[in-house]
Amino acid sequence: MQYFYAPQAEPSDIIILDAEESRHCLRVLRLRTGDRVEVVDGNGNLYHAEIISDKGRQCELRIVECRKHFHQRDFKISIGMALPKNRERFEWFLEKATELGIDEVFPLLTERSERSKLNAERLQKILISAMKQSGKAYLPVLHEPQKFQDMLLTGAGNSLQKFIAVCEENLPHLKDVAERKKDALVLIGPEGDFTEDELKRARANGFQAISLGKSRLRVETAGIASCHILNLLND
Amino acid sequence: MQYFYAPQAEPSDIIILDAEESRHCLRVLRLRTGDRVEVVDGNGNLYHAEIISDKGRQCELRIVECRKHFHQRDFKISIGMALPKNRERFEWFLEKATELGIDEVFPLLTERSERSKLNAERLQKILISAMKQSGKAYLPVLHEPQKFQDMLLTGAGNSLQKFIAVCEENLPHLKDVAERKKDALVLIGPEGDFTEDELKRARANGFQAISLGKSRLRVETAGIASCHILNLLND
Repeated sequence: MQYFYAPQAEPSDIIILDAEESRHCLRVLRLRTGDRVEVVDGNGNLYHAEIISDKGRQCELRIVECRKHFHQRDFKISIGMALPKNRERFEWFLEKATELGIDEVFPLLTERSERSKLNAERLQKILISAMKQSGKAYLPVLHEPQKFQDMLLTGAGNSLQKFIAVCEENLPHLKDVAERKKDALVLIGPEGDFTEDELKRARANGFQAISLGKSRLRVETAGIASCHILNLLND
Repeated sequence: MQYFYAPQAEPSDIIILDAEESRHCLRVLRLRTGDRVEVVDGNGNLYHAEIISDKGRQCELRIVECRKHFHQRDFKISIGMALPKNRERFEWFLEKATELGIDEVFPLLTERSERSKLNAERLQKILISAMKQSGKAYLPVLHEPQKFQDMLLTGAGNSLQKFIAVCEENLPHLKDVAERKKDALVLIGPEGDFTEDELKRARANGFQAISLGKSRLRVETAGIASCHILNLLND
């Protein structure tokens, strides 16, 4: 059940694992020529492959079988989220959302956001690790941080279901309004929540204000809860 | 919305915050005599109180109003969980489960568990902090680690719904078998899952084997997902 990651640039029956994956394969797991491994490319391909070279620090594999569109889903889950102050909390969100199932993440710069920068390389590693660990072949897309107002134009005109989570009672619950098998985007605000103005503009752009339940949730918990609800609907 | 914590030993209209809460109240938030604060005691009481002394390092309050059974629920959610290898992962679980809503946590010693000790004092602080942060007045109970076989006897004879989460397809999903407004307990296995024997004994003791969906989840993620599903059912 141990997956390796190798983004395949072009179709080929040879895979060369990068330094880190090679080290894990040869040094940590002590696999050798002739051993079989499973590799995912982040684009939906799951390869069954055989080690053909374990020389030095580079592991070379020959693809024995390829399963395309591995566990492909016919809907997309996207979350737009203000970055929590604490860096670790966003990393934790990425890991958990990947495990539960997410397609795209949009870090949001809102009026009350306290952080706007992220370490893309580090976050990419977290996504890859969570993808492999949870047995998935699709790597979630982490977008560059973008302004709230730009986010509002996303998916305009298509059939995307657009929601904005608000800490307010008497709103419909996401679980009761989201539809199965349809793409969905949920926006999650910062610690101080969205401003009245942001909420108004989101509504004007076709976003439905929803609740995530009675509990007061932290930013990253609200992100995970949204992602989980949309997955449960489709499970 | 800033809550303080003070376990009230006996009914009184005076609350004395402990050193840490006093420091937070007087030094960090710079509140003074006459200011109003909200205090929870972990037993369901939410106090509106007024600072009557801010001398030295001790903050003294007089209760102005008490709301008993604050957000009390008529069902209990309990999770029995094998301790993840990584200490931090269990701490995340406790924080997130508290935010989402949990009543009791039972750390489990299973055949494949890799860790059996925990730092009760540190974990208690995490629970208190999450309770205050998420606006709750009931503190979840974290039990001592206990053997899997002892856990199986829990709730025998009463109307508790008992589930054991298994990484196996074709099992009913927790969301489809759990009933609203009834106490529920879900057991979550360690990284290598429960053994066949453990599963057999759980079934013999009235536990129903359930799935948490198609994704392969880490231990702490499975715990959070179970807790969230039971909360959603009752939301």
